[in-house]
Amino acid sequence: MSNDCIFCKIAAGEIGGPPVYQDEEVTAFRDINPQAPHHILVIPNEHISSLNEAADGHQALLGKLLLTAAKIAADQGLAETGYRLVLNTGPQAGQTVFHIHLHLLGGRRMAWPPG
Amino acid sequence: MSNDCIFCKIAAGEIGGPPVYQDEEVTAFRDINPQAPHHILVIPNEHISSLNEAADGHQALLGKLLLTAAKIAADQGLAETGYRLVLNTGPQAGQTVFHIHLHLLGGRRMAWPPG
Repeated sequence: MSNDCIFCKIAAGEIGGPPVYQDEEVTAFRDINPQAPHHILVIPNEHISSLNEAADGHQALLGKLLLTAAKIAADQGLAETGYRLVLNTGPQAGQTVFHIHLHLLGGRRMAWPPG
Repeated sequence: MSNDCIFCKIAAGEIGGPPVYQDEEVTAFRDINPQAPHHILVIPNEHISSLNEAADGHQALLGKLLLTAAKIAADQGLAETGYRLVLNTGPQAGQTVFHIHLHLLGGRRMAWPPG
Protein backbone atom coordinates (compact mmCIF):
# COMPACT_ATOMS: atom_id res chain seq x y z
CA MET A 1 0.00 0.00 0.00
CA SER A 2 1.10 3.52 -0.81
CA ASN A 3 0.19 5.95 1.97
CA ASP A 4 -0.65 8.82 -0.34
CA CYS A 5 -2.64 6.84 -2.90
CA ILE A 6 -6.38 7.48 -2.92
CA PHE A 7 -7.15 4.11 -4.52
CA CYS A 8 -5.11 2.30 -1.87
CA LYS A 9 -7.24 4.04 0.74
CA ILE A 10 -10.43 2.94 -1.04
CA ALA A 11 -9.18 -0.65 -1.26
CA ALA A 12 -8.38 -0.53 2.46
CA GLY A 13 -11.88 0.76 3.25
CA GLU A 14 -10.51 3.98 4.74
CA ILE A 15 -12.50 6.20 2.39
CA GLY A 16 -15.45 5.76 0.03
CA GLY A 17 -18.63 3.82 0.44
CA PRO A 18 -19.25 0.09 0.22
CA PRO A 19 -17.45 -1.36 -2.81
CA VAL A 20 -19.38 -2.85 -5.73
CA TYR A 21 -17.17 -5.91 -5.30
CA GLN A 22 -14.17 -6.80 -3.19
CA ASP A 23 -12.03 -9.82 -2.41
CA GLU A 24 -8.45 -10.35 -1.28
CA GLU A 25 -7.00 -9.34 -4.63
CA VAL A 26 -9.26 -6.74 -6.26
CA THR A 27 -11.73 -3.99 -5.40
CA ALA A 28 -14.43 -2.43 -7.59
CA PHE A 29 -16.23 0.84 -6.95
CA ARG A 30 -18.20 3.45 -8.88
CA ASP A 31 -16.33 6.25 -10.67
CA ILE A 32 -17.14 9.59 -9.01
CA ASN A 33 -17.31 11.24 -12.44
CA PRO A 34 -19.29 8.67 -14.43
CA GLN A 35 -19.13 8.73 -18.23
CA ALA A 36 -21.95 6.21 -18.76
CA PRO A 37 -24.98 4.96 -16.79
CA HIS A 38 -22.69 2.26 -15.41
CA HIS A 39 -19.10 3.35 -14.79
CA ILE A 40 -17.17 1.20 -12.36
CA LEU A 41 -13.44 1.01 -11.64
CA VAL A 42 -11.76 -2.32 -10.95
CA ILE A 43 -8.38 -2.08 -9.22
CA PRO A 44 -5.83 -4.46 -7.77
CA ASN A 45 -5.58 -4.10 -3.99
CA GLU A 46 -1.81 -4.11 -4.45
CA HIS A 47 -0.40 -0.73 -5.39
CA ILE A 48 0.88 -0.84 -8.98
CA SER A 49 1.20 2.68 -10.33
CA SER A 50 0.56 1.88 -13.98
CA LEU A 51 0.66 -0.95 -16.47
CA ASN A 52 4.23 0.12 -17.28
CA GLU A 53 5.19 -0.98 -13.77
CA ALA A 54 3.36 -4.34 -13.94
CA ALA A 55 5.78 -7.27 -13.86
CA ASP A 56 5.43 -10.77 -15.27
CA GLY A 57 4.54 -11.86 -11.74
CA HIS A 58 1.37 -9.78 -11.97
CA GLN A 59 0.01 -11.76 -14.92
CA ALA A 60 -2.65 -13.65 -12.96
CA LEU A 61 -3.67 -10.50 -11.07
CA LEU A 62 -4.11 -8.59 -14.33
CA GLY A 63 -6.19 -11.42 -15.74
CA LYS A 64 -8.32 -11.28 -12.63
CA LEU A 65 -9.07 -7.60 -13.29
CA LEU A 66 -10.60 -8.56 -16.64
CA LEU A 67 -12.51 -11.58 -15.29
CA THR A 68 -13.81 -9.52 -12.39
CA ALA A 69 -14.98 -6.79 -14.75
CA ALA A 70 -16.84 -9.42 -16.81
CA LYS A 71 -18.51 -10.81 -13.70
CA ILE A 72 -19.54 -7.37 -12.50
CA ALA A 73 -20.90 -6.57 -15.97
CA ALA A 74 -23.01 -9.72 -15.78
CA ASP A 75 -24.19 -8.82 -12.28
CA GLN A 76 -25.19 -5.37 -13.50
CA GLY A 77 -27.15 -6.82 -16.42
CA LEU A 78 -24.68 -5.62 -19.05
CA ALA A 79 -23.43 -8.92 -20.46
CA GLU A 80 -25.90 -9.03 -23.34
CA THR A 81 -26.17 -5.33 -24.13
CA GLY A 82 -22.43 -4.87 -23.94
CA TYR A 83 -19.74 -2.97 -22.09
CA ARG A 84 -16.39 -1.34 -22.78
CA LEU A 85 -13.25 -1.80 -20.68
CA VAL A 86 -10.61 0.93 -20.79
CA LEU A 87 -7.16 1.03 -19.21
CA ASN A 88 -5.23 4.30 -19.47
CA THR A 89 -1.47 4.44 -19.06
CA GLY A 90 0.46 7.69 -19.03
CA PRO A 91 -0.28 11.31 -19.93
CA GLN A 92 -1.57 11.05 -23.51
CA ALA A 93 -4.10 8.43 -22.40
CA GLY A 94 -5.31 10.67 -19.60
CA GLN A 95 -4.24 8.55 -16.63
CA THR A 96 -4.89 10.73 -13.58
CA VAL A 97 -4.57 8.34 -10.62
CA PHE A 98 -1.36 6.36 -10.55
CA HIS A 99 -2.76 3.08 -9.28
CA ILE A 100 -3.87 0.72 -12.07
CA HIS A 101 -7.63 0.99 -12.63
CA LEU A 102 -9.74 -0.67 -15.27
CA HIS A 103 -12.77 1.37 -16.35
CA LEU A 104 -15.96 -0.62 -16.97
CA LEU A 105 -18.52 1.42 -18.93
CA GLY A 106 -21.98 0.28 -19.96
CA GLY A 107 -25.63 1.21 -20.21
CA ARG A 108 -25.31 3.33 -23.34
CA ARG A 109 -23.99 2.92 -26.87
CA MET A 110 -20.26 3.68 -26.89
CA ALA A 111 -18.83 5.66 -29.83
CA TRP A 112 -15.76 4.96 -31.97
CA PRO A 113 -12.97 6.01 -31.78
CA PRO A 114 -12.69 5.40 -28.06
CA GLY A 115 -11.70 8.95 -27.21
CA MET B 1 -9.61 -22.48 -33.87
CA SER B 2 -12.89 -21.44 -35.45
CA ASN B 3 -12.86 -22.01 -39.22
CA ASP B 4 -14.89 -18.94 -40.05
CA CYS B 5 -13.10 -16.51 -37.72
CA ILE B 6 -10.90 -13.92 -39.42
CA PHE B 7 -8.76 -13.42 -36.31
CA CYS B 8 -8.14 -17.16 -36.02
CA LYS B 9 -6.88 -17.06 -39.61
CA ILE B 10 -4.57 -14.15 -38.78
CA ALA B 11 -3.23 -15.96 -35.70
CA ALA B 12 -2.63 -19.02 -37.86
CA GLY B 13 -0.74 -16.94 -40.45
CA GLU B 14 -3.24 -17.79 -43.18
CA ILE B 15 -4.05 -14.16 -43.92
CA GLY B 16 -2.52 -10.79 -43.11
CA GLY B 17 1.08 -9.70 -43.08
CA PRO B 18 3.79 -10.36 -40.51
CA PRO B 19 2.45 -9.86 -37.00
CA VAL B 20 3.75 -7.08 -34.78
CA TYR B 21 4.31 -9.77 -32.16
CA GLN B 22 3.48 -13.46 -31.87
CA ASP B 23 4.19 -16.33 -29.52
CA GLU B 24 2.43 -19.58 -28.67
CA GLU B 25 -0.37 -17.83 -26.79
CA VAL B 26 -0.98 -14.41 -28.33
CA THR B 27 -0.72 -12.54 -31.63
CA ALA B 28 -0.57 -8.78 -32.23
CA PHE B 29 -1.18 -7.01 -35.53
CA ARG B 30 -2.13 -3.56 -36.80
CA ASP B 31 -5.79 -2.58 -37.00
CA ILE B 32 -6.80 -2.14 -40.66
CA ASN B 33 -8.88 0.92 -39.71
CA PRO B 34 -6.54 2.74 -37.31
CA GLN B 35 -7.96 5.31 -34.90
CA ALA B 36 -4.58 6.62 -33.74
CA PRO B 37 -1.01 6.76 -35.14
CA HIS B 38 -0.42 3.46 -33.35
CA HIS B 39 -3.41 1.11 -33.29
CA ILE B 40 -2.58 -2.52 -32.66
CA LEU B 41 -4.81 -5.44 -31.75
CA VAL B 42 -3.63 -8.08 -29.29
CA ILE B 43 -5.55 -11.36 -29.41
CA PRO B 44 -5.33 -14.79 -27.82
CA ASN B 45 -4.47 -17.46 -30.38
CA GLU B 46 -7.23 -19.54 -28.82
CA HIS B 47 -10.68 -18.67 -30.09
CA ILE B 48 -12.70 -17.02 -27.33
CA SER B 49 -15.62 -15.13 -28.85
CA SER B 50 -15.89 -12.42 -26.20
CA LEU B 51 -14.99 -11.67 -22.60
CA ASN B 52 -18.42 -13.02 -21.65
CA GLU B 53 -17.20 -16.45 -22.76
CA ALA B 54 -13.86 -16.26 -20.93
CA ALA B 55 -13.65 -18.82 -18.12
CA ASP B 56 -11.67 -18.76 -14.90
CA GLY B 57 -9.16 -21.02 -16.65
CA HIS B 58 -8.37 -18.15 -19.02
CA GLN B 59 -7.15 -15.89 -16.24
CA ALA B 60 -3.45 -16.18 -17.05
CA LEU B 61 -4.10 -15.83 -20.78
CA LEU B 62 -6.09 -12.64 -20.21
CA GLY B 63 -3.32 -11.25 -18.04
CA LYS B 64 -0.89 -12.04 -20.82
CA LEU B 65 -2.93 -9.89 -23.22
CA LEU B 66 -2.37 -6.89 -20.93
CA LEU B 67 1.32 -7.60 -20.32
CA THR B 68 1.89 -8.14 -24.04
CA ALA B 69 0.18 -4.85 -24.84
CA ALA B 70 2.45 -3.09 -22.33
CA LYS B 71 5.55 -4.66 -23.87
CA ILE B 72 4.47 -3.72 -27.39
CA ALA B 73 3.75 -0.17 -26.21
CA ALA B 74 7.29 0.01 -24.84
CA ASP B 75 8.71 -1.40 -28.07
CA GLN B 76 6.80 1.23 -30.05
CA GLY B 77 8.11 4.04 -27.83
CA LEU B 78 4.74 4.70 -26.19
CA ALA B 79 5.50 3.80 -22.58
CA GLU B 80 6.34 7.35 -21.51
CA THR B 81 3.90 9.30 -23.70
CA GLY B 82 1.08 6.94 -22.88
CA TYR B 83 -1.39 4.54 -24.48
CA ARG B 84 -5.00 3.45 -24.05
CA LEU B 85 -6.18 -0.17 -24.01
CA VAL B 86 -9.80 -0.89 -24.97
CA LEU B 87 -11.72 -4.14 -24.88
CA ASN B 88 -15.23 -4.11 -26.36
CA THR B 89 -17.80 -6.75 -25.45
CA GLY B 90 -21.19 -6.93 -27.11
CA PRO B 91 -23.27 -4.65 -29.32
CA GLN B 92 -23.41 -1.39 -27.30
CA ALA B 93 -19.63 -1.42 -27.01
CA GLY B 94 -19.26 -1.89 -30.76
CA GLN B 95 -17.67 -5.32 -30.80
CA THR B 96 -17.57 -6.34 -34.48
CA VAL B 97 -15.29 -9.40 -34.56
CA PHE B 98 -16.24 -12.13 -32.13
CA HIS B 99 -12.75 -13.20 -31.11
CA ILE B 100 -11.42 -11.32 -28.07
CA HIS B 101 -9.17 -8.46 -29.18
CA LEU B 102 -7.53 -5.81 -27.03
CA HIS B 103 -7.08 -2.47 -28.80
CA LEU B 104 -3.80 -0.66 -28.09
CA LEU B 105 -3.96 3.00 -29.14
CA GLY B 106 -1.18 5.55 -28.86
CA GLY B 107 0.68 8.34 -30.58
CA ARG B 108 -1.92 11.02 -29.96
CA ARG B 109 -3.77 12.53 -27.01
CA MET B 110 -6.86 10.43 -26.28
CA ALA B 111 -10.08 12.22 -25.32
CA TRP B 112 -12.49 11.53 -22.44
CA PRO B 113 -15.05 9.97 -22.36
CA PRO B 114 -13.61 6.99 -24.20
CA GLY B 115 -16.28 6.94 -26.89
